[in-house]
Amino acid sequence: MFFSKLNSLKDTIEIIDNNQKIMGNEVIPLREAHKRVLAENIESFQDSPPFDKSVMDGFAVKGKDTFGASDSSPKTLKIVDSISAGVESKKHLKNGEAIIIATGAPIPKGADAVLMKEYTTIDDDEVIITNQVTPGENISPKSEDIKKGDKVLSKNTFIRYQEMGMIASAGYDEIKVFEKPKVKVIITGNELVEPTKDPLDAAHIINSNQFTMLSMIEDCGAVSSIECVDDTFESVENAILKASEEYDVVMTTGGTALSKGDVVLDVVETNGKLLCHGISIRPGKPFGAGIINNRMVFAFSGQPVAAMTQFDMFARKYLFKMQGREFKYPIVKRRSRLKIPSQLGRTDFVRAFSDDKYARHILNRGSGIIRSMIDANSYIIIDENNEGCQKDDLVNVVYFNLMSW
Amino acid sequence: MFFSKLNSLKDTIEIIDNNQKIMGNEVIPLREAHKRVLAENIESFQDSPPFDKSVMDGFAVKGKDTFGASDSSPKTLKIVDSISAGVESKKHLKNGEAIIIATGAPIPKGADAVLMKEYTTIDDDEVIITNQVTPGENISPKSEDIKKGDKVLSKNTFIRYQEMGMIASAGYDEIKVFEKPKVKVIITGNELVEPTKDPLDAAHIINSNQFTMLSMIEDCGAVSSIECVDDTFESVENAILKASEEYDVVMTTGGTALSKGDVVLDVVETNGKLLCHGISIRPGKPFGAGIINNRMVFAFSGQPVAAMTQFDMFARKYLFKMQGREFKYPIVKRRSRLKIPSQLGRTDFVRAFSDDKYARHILNRGSGIIRSMIDANSYIIIDENNEGCQKDDLVNVVYFNLMSW
Repeated sequence: MFFSKLNSLKDTIEIIDNNQKIMGNEVIPLREAHKRVLAENIESFQDSPPFDKSVMDGFAVKGKDTFGASDSSPKTLKIVDSISAGVESKKHLKNGEAIIIATGAPIPKGADAVLMKEYTTIDDDEVIITNQVTPGENISPKSEDIKKGDKVLSKNTFIRYQEMGMIASAGYDEIKVFEKPKVKVIITGNELVEPTKDPLDAAHIINSNQFTMLSMIEDCGAVSSIECVDDTFESVENAILKASEEYDVVMTTGGTALSKGDVVLDVVETNGKLLCHGISIRPGKPFGAGIINNRMVFAFSGQPVAAMTQFDMFARKYLFKMQGREFKYPIVKRRSRLKIPSQLGRTDFVRAFSDDKYARHILNRGSGIIRSMIDANSYIIIDENNEGCQKDDLVNVVYFNLMSW
Repeated sequence: MFFSKLNSLKDTIEIIDNNQKIMGNEVIPLREAHKRVLAENIESFQDSPPFDKSVMDGFAVKGKDTFGASDSSPKTLKIVDSISAGVESKKHLKNGEAIIIATGAPIPKGADAVLMKEYTTIDDDEVIITNQVTPGENISPKSEDIKKGDKVLSKNTFIRYQEMGMIASAGYDEIKVFEKPKVKVIITGNELVEPTKDPLDAAHIINSNQFTMLSMIEDCGAVSSIECVDDTFESVENAILKASEEYDVVMTTGGTALSKGDVVLDVVETNGKLLCHGISIRPGKPFGAGIINNRMVFAFSGQPVAAMTQFDMFARKYLFKMQGREFKYPIVKRRSRLKIPSQLGRTDFVRAFSDDKYARHILNRGSGIIRSMIDANSYIIIDENNEGCQKDDLVNVVYFNLMSW
């Protein structure tokens, strides 16, 4: 297949968007829900706090009983009870009385403030106080944080550590989340061998893509299984058909160029629907996508950097959205340290090291130079309507670490 | 214990730094190394590519044999061999000859360029070419990416997906990394119960801290085990002593205030060395740290938001550094949408929602209000030499998602 008409980046993203699949839901223990995505609204079963709560260790009092108390003019209250956290006082506080109270304990009836222990001295069954508190002081009122019945989190919320706390406080010990996509990665290439410290046989190359692919998939909240197959049509066809029945997404590397080696897209065309092949981007032109057995097949280049860029552009968003999570490239503006040439009609993903102000692109950036991704922390994106940029021009930058799950 | 003299944030960070422990090393399969930290330099056992490699499907040729070829003036070369990836040609290319070559295959001897298949037509044992190539074109030269013997990655490098590919290409199928810290989290509080949808018994509160703690620890590349214990000195002492023997770090929540409930720091003082107690920050004043059995004990507040902020300030850096990874708060400048009052001598971590230009702080931000962390994506940090800020002042902002592993 000749790339006679390359798809634009925008069209390709749209084609893939139009074929977006969404995972089903599963109920899991809250303990395992960190970094999952809610598949239900969280409506609280509880008030939080569930009662007017002391936020200090000290004495529950009537505020007005403390007015005017100071070091030079102490006041005395009668201690009628003592409660620790988890315990409710049976007493109803009267004028001139105080109850010893610990952080987290419910405010006793009749009390309206907590005086910190620091301002008190116990003398037998009395407490001498040297400071005043206003009503409400050192109390966290019932339902101040969460009100029973309120929707506290919406479906499609990504669960960070603070959402974990919120969901627990709302009374849920298990929740409904989107399932994680299971991704089959099929690595094609007769030349590929496992990493070895020994000299390589002639014409052999170490299979590094399997390691970058499994890591990138993990970076998208999904799980992967890797398989290496021969370049033959039959081997690739068998592997893809089987994967399309057992997995949620199929990804391949290699075999996307135009030749007898271009087996992956031939398999897709023969067994399903080819959505696109050949994209006007650099690196990463030989990318294809298609549908087999209602499963998306991403066909990435065998060139390591091309495969990474193609994954960043097309697969991340897809895997995020499968799990109910929005994905937006967090584009920021930086000044280019150097002039960057580009070609009209092609979108360039120029690896760069960017700081808070500037982006300096990596000079040696062939699509097989992994070093260029190691030295970089970001892409400068030169869009297709642009012939590159001059030194100090403002350019669009995306940081790698902001594209992760 | 009365917080008569609070430690400053800076002093506390320094005290903890001075007691930093570093984990040992372990050798693991490369497949499991994503997001670990290298505990050895990676010196390459291989050249990458290991030979002059074709990056296109087409014909290996002598560049000079193609000079002048065009659609209107095609040239003809004799096909003498055909090689796919993984195969080396036995032929030595002579003038006027061409060898069919696939992406990834080694350039045959005598050839110095690859002409893309698009510009060729096969006619029996000859190929008609309609374009020219310069010597070196479409070839990735041997060791262009990695040179055998070179140090390609340094000890203490964090392993992203691109480092995974680099390490594989250098010939390593297993590597030495820093061990993950095992963290014991001891939750104190007689009032705490598991999440439930049923009405809570009087004075009970749902234990949400266990869920935020395990998630934050996971966000630092470490693993956790949670235990809930009574507030008594004996229970807390037993739990901490046992944990200090079996785990790398001990963390507690609750029992850090001044009162009979202040058991955690009493246990630390009795059994080890108290490093600090009471920090001039907000939220999070009642934080303590100490050493028992040569293990760091972090004593966090029982108040959910105070515990999160304390973890962010003191534990993240510690857990990163245990694993050989540097941690720097990625502070950026934003304009405050609103006036923020603060107190001289105290560092405030004001939860805020920040975009690329502005930070708007959350108004209701008691140390128990989890909602304030949900609505926020960042802290505005008002340092101790500052009495707050005015609307539109530039303030220091740290994004939550940039403090993660």
